[in-house]
Amino acid sequence: MLSPTVRVAPSAASRATSLLRSVQFDHPPSCPCHSNPSFHLNRSPGTVANNLRRHLATPVDPSRQKEYAFEMAASSIRFGAGATREVGMDLKNMGAKRVCVVTDETVEKLDAMSRTVDALIREGIEFSVFNKVRIEPKDYSIKEAIAFAKPFNPDAFLAVGGGSVIDTAKLMNLYTVYPDADFLDFVNAPIGKGLPITRKLHPLIAVPTTAGTGSETTGTAIFDLVSKKAKTGVAHRNLKPTLGICDPLNTRTMPSAVHASSGLDVLCHSLESWTAIPYNERVPRPTNPINRPAYQGANPISDIFSLHALRSTVRYLPRAVKDPEDYEAQHQMLLASTLAGVGFGNAGVHLCHGMSYPISGQNPGYKHKGYEVDHPIIPHGVSVAVTAPAVFRFTAASNPDRHLAAAEAFGVDIANVKRESAGEVLGEAISEFLAKLGDQPLGLKNLGFRPSDIDMLVEGTIPQKRVLMLAPNLDQELEAEKNSLRRIFEQSMEY
Amino acid sequence: MLSPTVRVAPSAASRATSLLRSVQFDHPPSCPCHSNPSFHLNRSPGTVANNLRRHLATPVDPSRQKEYAFEMAASSIRFGAGATREVGMDLKNMGAKRVCVVTDETVEKLDAMSRTVDALIREGIEFSVFNKVRIEPKDYSIKEAIAFAKPFNPDAFLAVGGGSVIDTAKLMNLYTVYPDADFLDFVNAPIGKGLPITRKLHPLIAVPTTAGTGSETTGTAIFDLVSKKAKTGVAHRNLKPTLGICDPLNTRTMPSAVHASSGLDVLCHSLESWTAIPYNERVPRPTNPINRPAYQGANPISDIFSLHALRSTVRYLPRAVKDPEDYEAQHQMLLASTLAGVGFGNAGVHLCHGMSYPISGQNPGYKHKGYEVDHPIIPHGVSVAVTAPAVFRFTAASNPDRHLAAAEAFGVDIANVKRESAGEVLGEAISEFLAKLGDQPLGLKNLGFRPSDIDMLVEGTIPQKRVLMLAPNLDQELEAEKNSLRRIFEQSMEY
Repeated sequence: MLSPTVRVAPSAASRATSLLRSVQFDHPPSCPCHSNPSFHLNRSPGTVANNLRRHLATPVDPSRQKEYAFEMAASSIRFGAGATREVGMDLKNMGAKRVCVVTDETVEKLDAMSRTVDALIREGIEFSVFNKVRIEPKDYSIKEAIAFAKPFNPDAFLAVGGGSVIDTAKLMNLYTVYPDADFLDFVNAPIGKGLPITRKLHPLIAVPTTAGTGSETTGTAIFDLVSKKAKTGVAHRNLKPTLGICDPLNTRTMPSAVHASSGLDVLCHSLESWTAIPYNERVPRPTNPINRPAYQGANPISDIFSLHALRSTVRYLPRAVKDPEDYEAQHQMLLASTLAGVGFGNAGVHLCHGMSYPISGQNPGYKHKGYEVDHPIIPHGVSVAVTAPAVFRFTAASNPDRHLAAAEAFGVDIANVKRESAGEVLGEAISEFLAKLGDQPLGLKNLGFRPSDIDMLVEGTIPQKRVLMLAPNLDQELEAEKNSLRRIFEQSMEY
Repeated sequence: MLSPTVRVAPSAASRATSLLRSVQFDHPPSCPCHSNPSFHLNRSPGTVANNLRRHLATPVDPSRQKEYAFEMAASSIRFGAGATREVGMDLKNMGAKRVCVVTDETVEKLDAMSRTVDALIREGIEFSVFNKVRIEPKDYSIKEAIAFAKPFNPDAFLAVGGGSVIDTAKLMNLYTVYPDADFLDFVNAPIGKGLPITRKLHPLIAVPTTAGTGSETTGTAIFDLVSKKAKTGVAHRNLKPTLGICDPLNTRTMPSAVHASSGLDVLCHSLESWTAIPYNERVPRPTNPINRPAYQGANPISDIFSLHALRSTVRYLPRAVKDPEDYEAQHQMLLASTLAGVGFGNAGVHLCHGMSYPISGQNPGYKHKGYEVDHPIIPHGVSVAVTAPAVFRFTAASNPDRHLAAAEAFGVDIANVKRESAGEVLGEAISEFLAKLGDQPLGLKNLGFRPSDIDMLVEGTIPQKRVLMLAPNLDQELEAEKNSLRRIFEQSMEY
């Protein structure tokens, strides 16, 4: 017979010894108690003990402490041509009896949707389709979607579509589980309250039909808050789908122009997360792990995903754009999109994404070639990539080695490149990549922006705190920050 | 007002068109319907249509179909020196009110445990400690653990220790949620029934204190089934922990010999998952996704993890073993261990692991240097690595490029190596690595095995179907399989 041992706390003395040992043993950047590297410079035991006493006596201001840990969370991912047919069994395995299928009016007519519906019918699952997702969702379109979901009261969600569809489904799920919450409760601070998601959401399966957003693996949902003229969203790892089913049969329906722009989103997800400030430079350190943001800064696990996705995108995106029958390239781009999703979903994005929101929001009337719509449109991937050459010229000084590694991923021979030229070389590599891809604007001027628009673009970028805080090399003082953004916009006018 | 659109199934005609399109468009290896590559050889539309008709008319035997999809699932991982202190808040955030802490009598005395207990007390969480985990668990030790957990009726589990502790905690969780199940219900077939886990288990947080098993990220739990003299276990992705907290402060307590042997486990996890048969060569294809094994074969996502972990291990393990104060190396080995866990947790292991079970089980009396125990012991990592040089000489012909890439990870200049020498070169690189690491047996002879023991070792390997089925180059016909195993054991006698 085994007897349970109920433990009591160790004495204060043993705790102090243990802490002392930790402090002595640890590296500067990962000290569990604080983040002042100079504290560790003198390692003679007496001094460490003295420092420790001083350290323990000094009240710690958590808002100024740097982060010391990172978390890696991702949806389960299933990948395979034809895997959509399994989705009915998945929902049945999860015990779902009443499923809300979320899509838009274009995807509704595609094979991806008929395969999904077949799979649900085969398993006899009751479902209802919401097909009114707005591409580039607005707060009111999200609220309409939520108003559909609440009375249907589903026990699971199934999103079939691109990033807008998957993001909308995430928020339908969130506000169905929190029916009394105010819409702004979970929206990113400072625009909303940025509350953490502590309840268990319903299962959500995401079936992407584009190779771009990576939304099937992340806890992020983006929309326009019309009243504030701001792109914002909800970001918490508990918002992530339960399962992403990445079926290359479903991305075959993308026109070439959509391959290109969604692939450029993947390119920037990987470049931005790879170059974001390191997680252990982020401030403040959360006092409860549930408040650790999904966008944590670059970390050793996100790095693996981001660099791998960057290399794949450079290799396969041009092929996927040029030849609609190149299924290997399409397959690889869907994989790259998902891998980049895991990367930026745990590390974040920064300037290209932060600056893209006012670019697409303040569109002077540009209509991207290949998009069959009746209104002006700068596709998300295009608005993100257009500043990339200037952005990485600007950020390179923060970490020349990483920027050189990125240039190398574009095929640049970096053997004889000086570290101070890293930004120039990477910027040039990106410009060339965009030019060769074809049908890209190559500068804000080609989108119709004039130099006099730059002040408004800067003003529109400033509210993107959540991503700007991860931008390397960017001064946090407001005027200096505006000057830097202005310079990047200026240098993005044409190239 | 939005009206829900309840969809009906598309007509048989539209389904046939859609399927035809899929078949025309798809690559041979990922056809959603079957896996006969020759079917795709002639791509003229008329022939495809004829083939399609023939194809649809032929009844498909799922037991002979190859896999067409892979799934990547891993626990959330938090990594940081000191992160153990957050575990109380995590359990509170998960709503846990009654926690079963699982450990062993050695770990119970370490700082890892006092940090954990501090964290629980700080949050006022009720908990009970089970400290009787047996290293290299037996079925009876697992059953004792389950007998402890059932009456305590916890709503969450917290494992603090090495792989044996984490594996035991997984099974305590499983059989608490399935209190009426027979012990063999979930045990891998053919020894047990290998039922899938369909119920939602309690939250389980794993805090590893060794850098080896990667068990904090996987859905696998291994033990000895004494009556069958077999190492077996339960493997299902729903068994995986909710969260792994990888805190490099907790692996500092490992003696140098434990660093070495657990690091060799990481080395073989990465080498075996990297070289396992590809997922789309595995038979049979599951008819329901819940039956897709966690050990699926190498796939494009596991590959990223496995190769990265291999490179890290080659670089940092020798440093971690030689210098107990090299915290950077220890930190990197803990990360490598977790990354390799994600890799093999989704791809599997094969010969080194399959052959290691009889090696440690039939130990002729060897006691590994640096292990302070009162009985003979071949540590798991040692029993796994001892056959590695011969194993990869044997498997190389299946995929010389992968074996060359692995040799390159060991620092071999492969520029002028012929593909047919891949096995020789990799085998040599591994032998050298083991020799330089120090205190390794370098062959079964040094463990006390004689040539006359080989038949018993072969017999002891044969029941490891779950891993042998992933071994490349291994004949599935019993006598041929035994001959191959015999040759590998013979070549592992000394080097």
